[in-house]
Amino acid sequence: MLRRHVGILGLGLIGGSMAMRLKGRCLRLSGWDGDPRVLSCAISMGILDRASSGLEDLAVGCDLLVLAVPSSCIVPLGLKAVRHLKDGAVLMDTGSVKVPVVERLDPALSGGYLGFHPMAGRERGGLGNASKDLFEGALCALVPGPSSSPETVELGKELAEELGGRWAVMGPEEHDRGVGFVSHLPMLLSAALAGSAMEASKGGSEVELLAASGFRDVTRLSLGGPDLLQPLRRMNRRYIDEALSEFLRQVREILSQEDGALGDRLQRIARWREELGRGKGWLN
Amino acid sequence: MLRRHVGILGLGLIGGSMAMRLKGRCLRLSGWDGDPRVLSCAISMGILDRASSGLEDLAVGCDLLVLAVPSSCIVPLGLKAVRHLKDGAVLMDTGSVKVPVVERLDPALSGGYLGFHPMAGRERGGLGNASKDLFEGALCALVPGPSSSPETVELGKELAEELGGRWAVMGPEEHDRGVGFVSHLPMLLSAALAGSAMEASKGGSEVELLAASGFRDVTRLSLGGPDLLQPLRRMNRRYIDEALSEFLRQVREILSQEDGALGDRLQRIARWREELGRGKGWLN
Repeated sequence: MLRRHVGILGLGLIGGSMAMRLKGRCLRLSGWDGDPRVLSCAISMGILDRASSGLEDLAVGCDLLVLAVPSSCIVPLGLKAVRHLKDGAVLMDTGSVKVPVVERLDPALSGGYLGFHPMAGRERGGLGNASKDLFEGALCALVPGPSSSPETVELGKELAEELGGRWAVMGPEEHDRGVGFVSHLPMLLSAALAGSAMEASKGGSEVELLAASGFRDVTRLSLGGPDLLQPLRRMNRRYIDEALSEFLRQVREILSQEDGALGDRLQRIARWREELGRGKGWLN
Repeated sequence: MLRRHVGILGLGLIGGSMAMRLKGRCLRLSGWDGDPRVLSCAISMGILDRASSGLEDLAVGCDLLVLAVPSSCIVPLGLKAVRHLKDGAVLMDTGSVKVPVVERLDPALSGGYLGFHPMAGRERGGLGNASKDLFEGALCALVPGPSSSPETVELGKELAEELGGRWAVMGPEEHDRGVGFVSHLPMLLSAALAGSAMEASKGGSEVELLAASGFRDVTRLSLGGPDLLQPLRRMNRRYIDEALSEFLRQVREILSQEDGALGDRLQRIARWREELGRGKGWLN
């Protein structure tokens, strides 16, 4: 059990799922959401010990404040919250870009900041899609800033385990580069591919008729719409650009390589992906 | 029941699954595979009424010959088979590119050619992954050539229904353009994305650590390795190029559009993809 009074700011898919999981597994659980309908829905679902009356009320009381808000709101809301946190309280954010967040929040807390990114999600956000099992088996990236204390990092490990997940500690640059390749670029490609097929389908019904399970899977992330991709494009542009340029190099090589060399390359890629899948438990 | 003696050339994932499904649902089922191990495996699985001794032996006997061989072998094996087919026999191929196949096979048969493309597959090929339910609910594209007779097209519809699938008739250009957008380009992107992450993972363990369900789905098609993508790149280059250039236009716009316009675009794409998914029964 997490022996802290935990506060969760933002009760969408991530914050809501955390609340469902942590209720009864921490000393006390408070929550608040800027959207009154979401907050009253959370109250009627009984997933909080206490609904706070605002950001200040939430921040004042807790030992651990988790910001589960859209990436673009993390820094402004975090800086606001810091002014009300008690001494020794810890602040974590669940955003998927860390460099610009660590830069601003780490100096504002005395060792009490930790980036916390659970690698779990659904194509549809919101409290209505939340589940206490969302983080089961998921990796939680723990991203300390230059001044994060060892105790703060330990608390991140405890939180990950209480959520049913695993954890790994990494630096903000390594984190943002990694998610650029395995999360943000895939979102971009998925949306662009669905967008191309949408355009092409205007020229005839065959495109929609022929779409099958391969298309379904590659375009699943496009269902997320603007909420997922829009802020990342600005906040993680450097690593999205790096990933995109490596990706375009791969596309050019696949289109131009001789058959033998291409065969070897595709075989190597398939083997790497298969091994990764085995390690992750993705393959039957 | 399909009142024909059906011959299947190639007993991999597609041909093997067809044999499993058609056994007992047609007058007689013969099969042959160029790989003796595959053929003897099919015999011992009991999925054929008769194992032929070669291409000629198979072609001579049947009313409907299905070529379920890799795309690059369809034309040469088809032309060879035509010489042995009896009058009035029908030839269908299951390949995923039709323009260059129709061009060569349609004139060689007197109305008895039909392109038949079942939109079903698995990331792993081979008889070992075949299943009689593979085509359940799948769309079978029926692609007549200029001289295909109405009876031949009717037989294609019967075959699709016997396999448990649906059918739609379309021209070879429309077919190849459609699969360029919804199948071949997705395979290319999936392999290139997995390839980029493989390269990036050499720079540190974060890339592999952070890969989660989004990455899993977008790169699933890369598990197919060379077998799927290699011949298509040549045979459907025109439409893969068209699809790729529309895709790259979409990528550039997503990266450069103003927030408001981008939000609208991503929302429109998500809505289109959602409606498509509902129509296909992909969404819970």
